[in-house]
Amino acid sequence: MTDKSSLRVGVIGLGTVGSGLVRTLQRNRDRIARNAGMPIDLVAVADINPDTFSRLDLAGIETTSDAGRIIRDERIDCVAELIGGTGIARDIVLDAFRAGKDVVTANKALLATHAEEIFRTAEQYHRKIHFEGAVGGGIPIIQSLYGGIGAATVTQIHAIINGTCNYILTAMEKQGRNFRDVLKEAQKLGYAEVDPTFDIEGHDAGHKIAILASIACNTAIDFKDVHLEGIRDITVDDIKFGKELGYTLKLLAIAKDYQDSIDVRVHPTFIPNENLLASVHGVHNAVYTCAPGLGAVMLYGRGAGDLPTGNAVASDLIQAARDKTARQPVSYRNFYEKRKPVRDMANIEGSYYLRCIVADQAGVLATISHILGEHNISVSSMMQTEAGKDGVCPIVFMTHNAREGNVKKALDKIARQDVVKARPKFIRLERIEEVTQF
Amino acid sequence: MTDKSSLRVGVIGLGTVGSGLVRTLQRNRDRIARNAGMPIDLVAVADINPDTFSRLDLAGIETTSDAGRIIRDERIDCVAELIGGTGIARDIVLDAFRAGKDVVTANKALLATHAEEIFRTAEQYHRKIHFEGAVGGGIPIIQSLYGGIGAATVTQIHAIINGTCNYILTAMEKQGRNFRDVLKEAQKLGYAEVDPTFDIEGHDAGHKIAILASIACNTAIDFKDVHLEGIRDITVDDIKFGKELGYTLKLLAIAKDYQDSIDVRVHPTFIPNENLLASVHGVHNAVYTCAPGLGAVMLYGRGAGDLPTGNAVASDLIQAARDKTARQPVSYRNFYEKRKPVRDMANIEGSYYLRCIVADQAGVLATISHILGEHNISVSSMMQTEAGKDGVCPIVFMTHNAREGNVKKALDKIARQDVVKARPKFIRLERIEEVTQF
Repeated sequence: MTDKSSLRVGVIGLGTVGSGLVRTLQRNRDRIARNAGMPIDLVAVADINPDTFSRLDLAGIETTSDAGRIIRDERIDCVAELIGGTGIARDIVLDAFRAGKDVVTANKALLATHAEEIFRTAEQYHRKIHFEGAVGGGIPIIQSLYGGIGAATVTQIHAIINGTCNYILTAMEKQGRNFRDVLKEAQKLGYAEVDPTFDIEGHDAGHKIAILASIACNTAIDFKDVHLEGIRDITVDDIKFGKELGYTLKLLAIAKDYQDSIDVRVHPTFIPNENLLASVHGVHNAVYTCAPGLGAVMLYGRGAGDLPTGNAVASDLIQAARDKTARQPVSYRNFYEKRKPVRDMANIEGSYYLRCIVADQAGVLATISHILGEHNISVSSMMQTEAGKDGVCPIVFMTHNAREGNVKKALDKIARQDVVKARPKFIRLERIEEVTQF
Repeated sequence: MTDKSSLRVGVIGLGTVGSGLVRTLQRNRDRIARNAGMPIDLVAVADINPDTFSRLDLAGIETTSDAGRIIRDERIDCVAELIGGTGIARDIVLDAFRAGKDVVTANKALLATHAEEIFRTAEQYHRKIHFEGAVGGGIPIIQSLYGGIGAATVTQIHAIINGTCNYILTAMEKQGRNFRDVLKEAQKLGYAEVDPTFDIEGHDAGHKIAILASIACNTAIDFKDVHLEGIRDITVDDIKFGKELGYTLKLLAIAKDYQDSIDVRVHPTFIPNENLLASVHGVHNAVYTCAPGLGAVMLYGRGAGDLPTGNAVASDLIQAARDKTARQPVSYRNFYEKRKPVRDMANIEGSYYLRCIVADQAGVLATISHILGEHNISVSSMMQTEAGKDGVCPIVFMTHNAREGNVKKALDKIARQDVVKARPKFIRLERIEEVTQF
């Protein structure tokens, strides 16, 4: 641990990301050494499945099925925890700190749910932790928030940070295919898990936005306070109607800092077609930040995959190497010291896409408009298509700024009208206006 | 200089960027201190024009018209050189190193033309230099190349890094207005200088891509070897024809690393409409990088302006503060140690947009196609519009991969044909394909 001429690393977990890390360290050894100011040496790797060892070139590197050996190895400066989850991974990270080792990890679930314990323990043992791979795969968002845009107070984040959902929504939009169809295809191609719940319901994006919001909004966040809505109920029609009115549908992870409180939420969202996020397609991810003064900064790239995420973890090792010579550590106290209240969804304000299925008869539009007016909801544009043989037709509204509680009350009342044939539906809309001045 | 509890800064030059820096440091003081691990204290500012002092809140900060006072001030750890140019600015930076001070600067011209002297002197005096503001204003591209994507070997950069040109091209594209008109408007709005040559002819973008290419391609670059072509000759018709064939016109700064040689060039370029760069409009900038393994990463934001660039310089001060406690410095030897040859433009390969004005008569297409074939140029798509009253019409070709030397020879021969009524024109085309594997 006193050798300052190289950073000696032990990797625990040789799955997708672990393998990507090992290959990246080997392939880009010279560049990494130059940027780190010293070589980064892979000393040992651990995985419970010995088959993984044969898939990589591990000549000269110790292999073991016992993670504890890595943690106890006196030669190792830094442990890469890449097994994921919040069980064993948590023990490994805490034990590594206690053993005097720094940690790099790509474990978003662990950081979103055990941030306080992890960061307090790191501080207690004067160890460092880096986690670029936890959000947005190969996109350098974490280091930018602490570094390259670290002089700005980011007050808004709008992010596409789940590749599975973005792949599905892009295919629905471009090919007009329905959700189930595209999901099946995504599963075949490996873009969606056999059990896709974690991605489709917004949990994965929720973990990631909790981490980003903690940094940007300078606050602890309980993951259970993050409002999560997935994309299961999105239809091709919704996407089509929105498009005609000038909006593209994305699963957005959103964080907004109002200083005294914050918004943190994940839900399907219409955004203006002209916003750059609307052009982020397929499995790609993007994080769009706004800060007074700095204005908009967007970072785009591959949000998952062995090599992109392996690259991110390797970039953390570059940080760890630079830190080895007593660099002033970044403070992670934002993850636990202060806790701003998360706004209740009824109190958020925004614009909305409202869709009603109504009988094709006189007075319907007046009835609905009247109810919206009663609830302080004003309409920015609307669209009605011709009724089918069943005599019903969809009618779509885009609203100006309104309070969500009012929108829900209005929709409850609209649902009770005889002329309304199905429970009305709403999708939130973000205009994402760029703030350029303080 | 031995006080490790704060970073003490002197600013030389209170123009646009200097003022933006001061306001950013004041406005975001707490966040900056947290990310830097210590407060950043503004000790003194220098400007030859004392009027600048009254425009800022400088209570408790020393003001002087003598830059030398800042350099000699024993209290100051780090000098922010923000006067620009390659004359006095060069002396200031070198003197600051000799006086034992670190430097932050946004001076692209200085770094693009005196890199070796600047970086060697820094190394000689064991001082550090940071320059996030030199490329892309508020976009954190420099720190990302050294940090967040610093484990990747970036082999291609396609960048929109001149806001003036992007503003003009966007207005020409969206509003169908001609170059001169839009330029005049841009000058009125302050997006273009009274003498716009430096921006319009590609010099500014050339300085910036020289810096980015030095880092990404790990090589010294003589600025005079950077091929520069501006946007003066672009017509609304070119933009329109390209659009119909699926391409958007941008002034791109391009760097490609072939290991044994490099491409570094700035010129008007057609790119596929689907590429994210095609959606970067107005004064915004974006840097699109590709690296084997990592794939594409794009960073987008405001490429100029007081507060965006001031933010970038402030983020460099965060680095300087972290470095204060003996962090391993990044190596800048790439800027002078190795020198890869820059490819001659005749030897670059790419696709091309070719436009000829021809007589509307039989056999013209065959004549031109034959000449293209003779020079190993194959056509991917073409377009001919109806002839006007003068009996001539434009005919446009998009080619597959071809060698530029051959394209020029073919165009020379086409120009000599009787049926061709004006010197044919070419614009380069980049397909920007993403590399995702090693």
